[in-house]
Amino acid sequence: MTTKKILVSGVKPTGRPHIGNYFGAMKQFVDLQGEYDTRIFVANLHTLTGLQDAKEMKRNSIDVVLDYLGIGLDPEKVTLYFQSDIPHVTELAWIFECLTTMPYLMRAHAFKDAEAKNKDINVGTFNYPMLMAADILVHDADVVPVGKDQKQHIEIARDTAEKFNRTFGDTFKLPEALIIESVETVPGTDGQKMSKSYGNTIPLFATDEEIERAVMGIVTDSGSDIPQNVYAIHALIKDKASLDALYEEKKGKYKDLKEALILDLKAFIGPMRERRAEWAAKPEEAKRIVTEGGMKMRKVVHDKMKDAREKVGFIHHE
Amino acid sequence: MTTKKILVSGVKPTGRPHIGNYFGAMKQFVDLQGEYDTRIFVANLHTLTGLQDAKEMKRNSIDVVLDYLGIGLDPEKVTLYFQSDIPHVTELAWIFECLTTMPYLMRAHAFKDAEAKNKDINVGTFNYPMLMAADILVHDADVVPVGKDQKQHIEIARDTAEKFNRTFGDTFKLPEALIIESVETVPGTDGQKMSKSYGNTIPLFATDEEIERAVMGIVTDSGSDIPQNVYAIHALIKDKASLDALYEEKKGKYKDLKEALILDLKAFIGPMRERRAEWAAKPEEAKRIVTEGGMKMRKVVHDKMKDAREKVGFIHHE
Repeated sequence: MTTKKILVSGVKPTGRPHIGNYFGAMKQFVDLQGEYDTRIFVANLHTLTGLQDAKEMKRNSIDVVLDYLGIGLDPEKVTLYFQSDIPHVTELAWIFECLTTMPYLMRAHAFKDAEAKNKDINVGTFNYPMLMAADILVHDADVVPVGKDQKQHIEIARDTAEKFNRTFGDTFKLPEALIIESVETVPGTDGQKMSKSYGNTIPLFATDEEIERAVMGIVTDSGSDIPQNVYAIHALIKDKASLDALYEEKKGKYKDLKEALILDLKAFIGPMRERRAEWAAKPEEAKRIVTEGGMKMRKVVHDKMKDAREKVGFIHHE
Repeated sequence: MTTKKILVSGVKPTGRPHIGNYFGAMKQFVDLQGEYDTRIFVANLHTLTGLQDAKEMKRNSIDVVLDYLGIGLDPEKVTLYFQSDIPHVTELAWIFECLTTMPYLMRAHAFKDAEAKNKDINVGTFNYPMLMAADILVHDADVVPVGKDQKQHIEIARDTAEKFNRTFGDTFKLPEALIIESVETVPGTDGQKMSKSYGNTIPLFATDEEIERAVMGIVTDSGSDIPQNVYAIHALIKDKASLDALYEEKKGKYKDLKEALILDLKAFIGPMRERRAEWAAKPEEAKRIVTEGGMKMRKVVHDKMKDAREKVGFIHHE
């Protein structure tokens, strides 16, 4: 375990996930969990920038844990914890803020995008790359998995580590971005990118009825031999050889192809849905896993925080 | 003790204090220490916005403790602690940042002043009213002593408390500004405001030689009966009746008047200088006081933090 490289990532509780979320981001954690010392936190501090309702915050925080246990994260291999259980990151973020200029942080894409839409965005939204840098650097993370559009977060974390190291002496490891190639656009039932806002999703933990309804609703253009939108979704869960053989055999038979997709989706989703239901039936057990994860990580970050405080000259006591 | 109102204030370590600092700000804490449950923190987290040198940070942090013990803060009456010993305030500051808009925080005078001088100011300088609000509100402070030009800090803390209470339910007390009337401009040896940058100071813990040199250097206009700059400094430490009698008796005798001021300054400064030296001779004892202060305050803020976390929906564990 100790010789493995450290992978850190935060996941934001955002309500019921769909298979676009799964193939776009969630799946990677399961794929990588054996390879890295994986530490995944439920980013509730970050979520607070947009969600200011305690009940929903709590429910979503637990739900996201169940979601990740549902897709097969193995608590033996992965440390899952609540970001708020390591409040040290806010202290470290403050230290980083003192090393970071306003113009630098204002160049962050996420800030510029948010501010373009609404001048009244909150300070947390502006400041969150500092908290994110702390989340990552406090672990001495080797890699942070990101989509191509999130590379800047890692650049900011690296810049911040460099600034600290240059100012106060070598302290933080510079993390590498692990660009997940599979993070591609997952097509929805209408051929557009799958997204809640387009109403074209297939829920990740869908019931059989939901699967049937969603697949039957896939938009098809009559005239071509292969219904492209059906094929595109099918391609996510079936290997290319069997897939092409099937679509050759059932050429033009849209209904048959949709029924085949339904069967395959049920076989794919069913076990995850069952596993999630098992965890949901023992919420105390799921909560215990996150709590213990937090306690474990608190010990892990302790020495790094001690070092950082010492480096900046805070006289601190155990 | 518990029925007393709570007074909270941060002091920034800024090097050797002069009598302008004393009469302008430091003295109030001694005057008020019996009246309030007084909690004074050495604001090292805030200091980091401008001082990024561990050795100087540590030395200044200890020095400011010795300074305040020197002027007569009674550790039995006052809780003295390092801000970094209650890192909870950074967590609370993060929560407040999520409730505060960018335009609101950009209206802060201190930010506007700093940005007018240097566009490259750091994020900590921008963000520090949030940390200051956390420093105050975590205590449920009743009063915060401020000079007239610092009233906005308290307004921001009050606004922040109101925003939190409105969003998440009643949690934080709205603190009152305690405007210190005695915070007036203290004249330096050249008649201008006493300030390190003008080189016109009398150090608060001056040696006898330093006192003599400073007073002999007071700028006097020959011609008038009363040397105004000598009188102005003398007025800080002598009651008006005796003062006027003296200046009437020694009318025009500048040398005599300066010698009288030297005597009075020695009598005023001597005991404080001695007391500071006594504390400086037992640094471990001084450090123990601050450490114990931090531990005590950590217990005090614990319930408030627990409440705040619960209110925003962080699932937290002891």
